[in-house]
Amino acid sequence: MTDIAAIRAAAARLAPVVRRTPLLESPFLNDIAGRRVLVKAECLQHTGSFKFRGAWSAISAMDPELRARGVFAYSSGNHAQGMAYAAQLHGIPAVILMPADAPRLKLANTAALGAEVITYDRDRESREEIGARLAAERGLTLVKPYDEPMVIAGQGSCGLEIAEQAAEAGVSAADVMVCTGGGGLAAGVALALEAEAPGLRVRTAEPQDYDDWAVSLMKDQRTPATGGRKSICDAIVTPEPGEITFPILSRRAGPGFAISDAEALRAMSLAYERLKIVVEPGGAVALAAALFRPDAIEGDAAIAIATGGNVDREIFSRALAIS
Amino acid sequence: MTDIAAIRAAAARLAPVVRRTPLLESPFLNDIAGRRVLVKAECLQHTGSFKFRGAWSAISAMDPELRARGVFAYSSGNHAQGMAYAAQLHGIPAVILMPADAPRLKLANTAALGAEVITYDRDRESREEIGARLAAERGLTLVKPYDEPMVIAGQGSCGLEIAEQAAEAGVSAADVMVCTGGGGLAAGVALALEAEAPGLRVRTAEPQDYDDWAVSLMKDQRTPATGGRKSICDAIVTPEPGEITFPILSRRAGPGFAISDAEALRAMSLAYERLKIVVEPGGAVALAAALFRPDAIEGDAAIAIATGGNVDREIFSRALAIS
Repeated sequence: MTDIAAIRAAAARLAPVVRRTPLLESPFLNDIAGRRVLVKAECLQHTGSFKFRGAWSAISAMDPELRARGVFAYSSGNHAQGMAYAAQLHGIPAVILMPADAPRLKLANTAALGAEVITYDRDRESREEIGARLAAERGLTLVKPYDEPMVIAGQGSCGLEIAEQAAEAGVSAADVMVCTGGGGLAAGVALALEAEAPGLRVRTAEPQDYDDWAVSLMKDQRTPATGGRKSICDAIVTPEPGEITFPILSRRAGPGFAISDAEALRAMSLAYERLKIVVEPGGAVALAAALFRPDAIEGDAAIAIATGGNVDREIFSRALAIS
Repeated sequence: MTDIAAIRAAAARLAPVVRRTPLLESPFLNDIAGRRVLVKAECLQHTGSFKFRGAWSAISAMDPELRARGVFAYSSGNHAQGMAYAAQLHGIPAVILMPADAPRLKLANTAALGAEVITYDRDRESREEIGARLAAERGLTLVKPYDEPMVIAGQGSCGLEIAEQAAEAGVSAADVMVCTGGGGLAAGVALALEAEAPGLRVRTAEPQDYDDWAVSLMKDQRTPATGGRKSICDAIVTPEPGEITFPILSRRAGPGFAISDAEALRAMSLAYERLKIVVEPGGAVALAAALFRPDAIEGDAAIAIATGGNVDREIFSRALAIS
């Protein structure tokens, strides 16, 4: 089970290695939003996304003998890189199953970080089935990307930092926008804030046709996304909320946001211009919600987690063309 | 006079407002350089460059009555924005004289931060003469971009942070690459490191045809740059080392580096891909030296200050095209 004690323990294991990412602010973004907007720049985390937190938390919590045999993960890319690097730092083998159409940069980086990469067809194969088989055959331990208590606890360490940094910035009442796929980060952050900063409330942000969290939170029942056009927000196009993460967020999260690809690109463009950070589309939907949905925000301020920055150059160039 | 006491006092005045920028590292960049490369991301500072430090330091140190009448500055852009924002936060008027061909983003931002912007022709007019006249006519206090002790002291606060962060990262012997125009940052950082981290030595980095620091340090005499082709490194194309900054660096800096525009663009591209930060050409020459001049570096590690990120989209797109 994940609770605040597990999150604090994960934060302690992470302390020697994790990067305490800054909480950025720009008067220009505040003007657009009509309130203060604070951006937690997790794109500056090791491997370019928050996923390193959960990966390190899970691997560092394993039984040492089991850990030495290696770990296994499936991921559209950011969990893959986080796992590969956390495994490399632990000196253990990592096998990563990635969709063949994942961004090239994510595929290449995962391999360069020492992992064995195996690709699969996202439309025709079940990553869960392949994963279970590979794990059984090779004696590796599967570390799921979000429905895994030690991963949620690791992501929660980001929430502990937000609680501290928001207090330093003088913010005690805010909506905390979180780019949400399976919900591991949102759940961990929600638990951390409940304990450390009760005036800060998590709000999920998702791509328009993959708004399973927004719908599920509204119905108070796990509901698959309708799907639809392919989104450029590759990091967070999960089919439905996680089993473990949903009950956590159904109690603690406010209504979710659904963001268009065009809005994600515009948020990336503003993050480039005003914050000098590189954010990927799936990492920009939270900032888009903070900037472009002012009427749906309840807090005095909005805090947006820029969850990752692993974006191919063609897509980033599209964002640059918007000014 | 600027000494370590003045730097510590400036850091204390800056503490409530300055952003403690992170010291980033990537295994991919370490591989390229053949040693550890730590990047001080001052592009994440308020207004997108380290210049906010010196501006705040100077304005906060002024006599209150004089300060209330306002400040005046000339700048290719980054000092302008830092001054405008620091003046705005102090609630005082700021007049900024900028070259008419400065990057549009810098011109627009300076005005948006509440300053009165006056442009001049960089090739035909002397900014010093116009500046002196305007300051006299309006009773404003001129804050020079680098030959000003309180500005140097403020930039030195970046050196105090580097000393602490390098120690945290386990680095005690390193070359500290600093993008250098007039030398305010390099001088402040050199003084701070001399006191706090004597194993870290400043090295200047400049554009190829504007390598007045490299030549002056070699000859141990202030020598103008030869000039030549226009560089994209607009932030640091100063004609010669500063009067106050040169004696400081002649005693403390190692040999300087001269970097081509193509190398600056390649460093920007790598900073985008591996660190997820936006760096302008003149802010990337230090990283370029750290990555592409391995044989000229003496320390175990290289620390590069990414001094700014205020770059027009056309130029950044050119960097993105390099991979």
